[in-house]
Amino acid sequence: MRDVAVIGAGITKFGELWGTSIKDIFVEAAQKAIDDAGVDHIDSLYVGSMSPGLFVGQEHLGAVLADYLGVNPIPATRVESACASGGVAFRQAFLEVASGASEIVLAGGVEKMTDGADVTDVLATAADQEYEVYHGITFPGLYAMIAQAHMKQFGTTREQLAAVAVKNHRNGAKNPNAQFRSEISVEQVMKSTMVADPLRLLDCSPVSDGAASVIVASLEVAKKLSKSFARVKASAQASDTIALHSRESLTTLKSVVRAAQSAYKMAEMKPSDINFVEVHDCFTIAEIVVTEDLGFFEKGKGGEAVEKGLTALECGRIPVNTSGGLKAKGHPVGASGIAQIIELYEQLTGRAGARQAKNARIGMAQNMGGSGASCVIHILEAQ
Amino acid sequence: MRDVAVIGAGITKFGELWGTSIKDIFVEAAQKAIDDAGVDHIDSLYVGSMSPGLFVGQEHLGAVLADYLGVNPIPATRVESACASGGVAFRQAFLEVASGASEIVLAGGVEKMTDGADVTDVLATAADQEYEVYHGITFPGLYAMIAQAHMKQFGTTREQLAAVAVKNHRNGAKNPNAQFRSEISVEQVMKSTMVADPLRLLDCSPVSDGAASVIVASLEVAKKLSKSFARVKASAQASDTIALHSRESLTTLKSVVRAAQSAYKMAEMKPSDINFVEVHDCFTIAEIVVTEDLGFFEKGKGGEAVEKGLTALECGRIPVNTSGGLKAKGHPVGASGIAQIIELYEQLTGRAGARQAKNARIGMAQNMGGSGASCVIHILEAQ
Repeated sequence: MRDVAVIGAGITKFGELWGTSIKDIFVEAAQKAIDDAGVDHIDSLYVGSMSPGLFVGQEHLGAVLADYLGVNPIPATRVESACASGGVAFRQAFLEVASGASEIVLAGGVEKMTDGADVTDVLATAADQEYEVYHGITFPGLYAMIAQAHMKQFGTTREQLAAVAVKNHRNGAKNPNAQFRSEISVEQVMKSTMVADPLRLLDCSPVSDGAASVIVASLEVAKKLSKSFARVKASAQASDTIALHSRESLTTLKSVVRAAQSAYKMAEMKPSDINFVEVHDCFTIAEIVVTEDLGFFEKGKGGEAVEKGLTALECGRIPVNTSGGLKAKGHPVGASGIAQIIELYEQLTGRAGARQAKNARIGMAQNMGGSGASCVIHILEAQ
Repeated sequence: MRDVAVIGAGITKFGELWGTSIKDIFVEAAQKAIDDAGVDHIDSLYVGSMSPGLFVGQEHLGAVLADYLGVNPIPATRVESACASGGVAFRQAFLEVASGASEIVLAGGVEKMTDGADVTDVLATAADQEYEVYHGITFPGLYAMIAQAHMKQFGTTREQLAAVAVKNHRNGAKNPNAQFRSEISVEQVMKSTMVADPLRLLDCSPVSDGAASVIVASLEVAKKLSKSFARVKASAQASDTIALHSRESLTTLKSVVRAAQSAYKMAEMKPSDINFVEVHDCFTIAEIVVTEDLGFFEKGKGGEAVEKGLTALECGRIPVNTSGGLKAKGHPVGASGIAQIIELYEQLTGRAGARQAKNARIGMAQNMGGSGASCVIHILEAQ
């Protein structure tokens, strides 16, 4: 396999973008990424999108977006792994360049969620329709069960869950593209509307529109462009049972553990080598479980870690979600995995502005689908 | 890029499979393919499926199917390019093995179309929602316009369109997994119900359930298994404008022309090197246009060719759709591209039974999405 690099990035503001279509926002992010990379063409494109069919009545999204971006006749493919669609799109672009089939590939992600569909119902199609959704549960309920189990098993507290949201809003306030740029307090989280006990409104990532794109290229192309870039040190993906009830434990996400093992092996690294990480905090409990499963904290200690500030941007042992995470930056589901890669790229090239982490040489992005039935992890290194 | 082979195949019967779920049929085809290949594991899986969200309310299909196939924690990814989803899944598996990231990858396709959704509406999400579907057109209408233009420009006749369906039903009658195993006459086609002038019911591929899987492996793995296999000589994909009204010509599918150019170049072959071909005959006119655009017949002569028997299984210059094609074999949209690869594999390994083509050493599969906004072409060679 050839060495692969990220050489450019583009992103829209995340939020309720009622004035623009799924095509508009994809093209905006993609064109920014192409301009940022300074390339005069792309060989192919991948787009991660969870459910454009149910959200806006448009499948065949690869072809649609290639057309509107004006890049026909290049190959254009949509990939889907629920909320991990963006991370998987990046992985496919990585594999295509690593194979030698292409030199420069655009990996994008997009979702338009606010155009009228019943969002909770659409997102529930990422769970097991026959055995979970049929019985009435949706994602807040699934993650609430994980939270309940984690609290019972390890003594994780309600305040610790809130601390995740507070930290991510603090980071998001520094991110010009974030949906929420307001800081919040533990008290505000604790008093927000109950959604699924113990998860309250401010424990949940929002419903968002948004698009994000990166340009992936061979190392040779990256070097010729004479600009800063980030090298892809690992790409790993794993699956787990679709339904929570099939799992041995509710408090460990096996797909995260397995993808992390593969990623560390491929990069020849260990958790302590990672300087900062973007994790899939669709709900506050997810960030706690994932930072444990990635090996940054002992199992059961993730809540304590965030409460003690060990994951803070300033002076944390490992800054987590410097972008604001899904919680504050927003979660247009297909775009989130690419937005994580963009945060890594910006941090590693020293362009993260007010949210720049110190000594950001190696970053990890962890993106997952459903209640963890799919997980994709990438490790990038500054060059 | 490493050399890649197809080492096993499995397929369900295509048709109205009301007694089984999308998971059941995928697992049936996938398990048959694994057994046929004689491998004890797979490293990852891709599944092509156009719209499981709209058809059966289930997204996150890669993870769902990996779970039900019992292959967690391997990576499992759904890809979508409308009716080219299967061909694109095969291409992703090819790229992953070619890159060296994996040795043995399952490429599957599945669609469950008869479970209650409004099929024509769902399929229309493969066209441009804003500029085509909004104005009321669906796919029979789009292909009818192509047919009208072809008839006007080249004198293609109603009988020539019918000859495509007659030939494909004759081939399908020899395929035990085909949805329709009945021969039909030109007269029956000409008298069938009008759908969109000039296309009648028997010019249209049917609504189908079905699943298909192949096992893709490195050449080294293929050789170690000491069984017959087929080598992938080319994998090519191209895009075109999503809407018909944006094209210079209605009678040439540019994505087919461009993907074919790339495929011939990669394989270092020309049209006359291909011994047989599976093409995407979603409507009879599609087969005529595509056989021209692939270079087998001069532009405008595709209708005459089929009428003269040049594409017949027996004594044809180049047998087209020996499987029965989408028309007779059935068209569970996500599965069709993989089913084409299976026909190539069976022909190239001499296992096609009553529909075995003579001198089948090199075969081509052409799979497309929408009205040709995406096209993926593979060339396989017997070993």
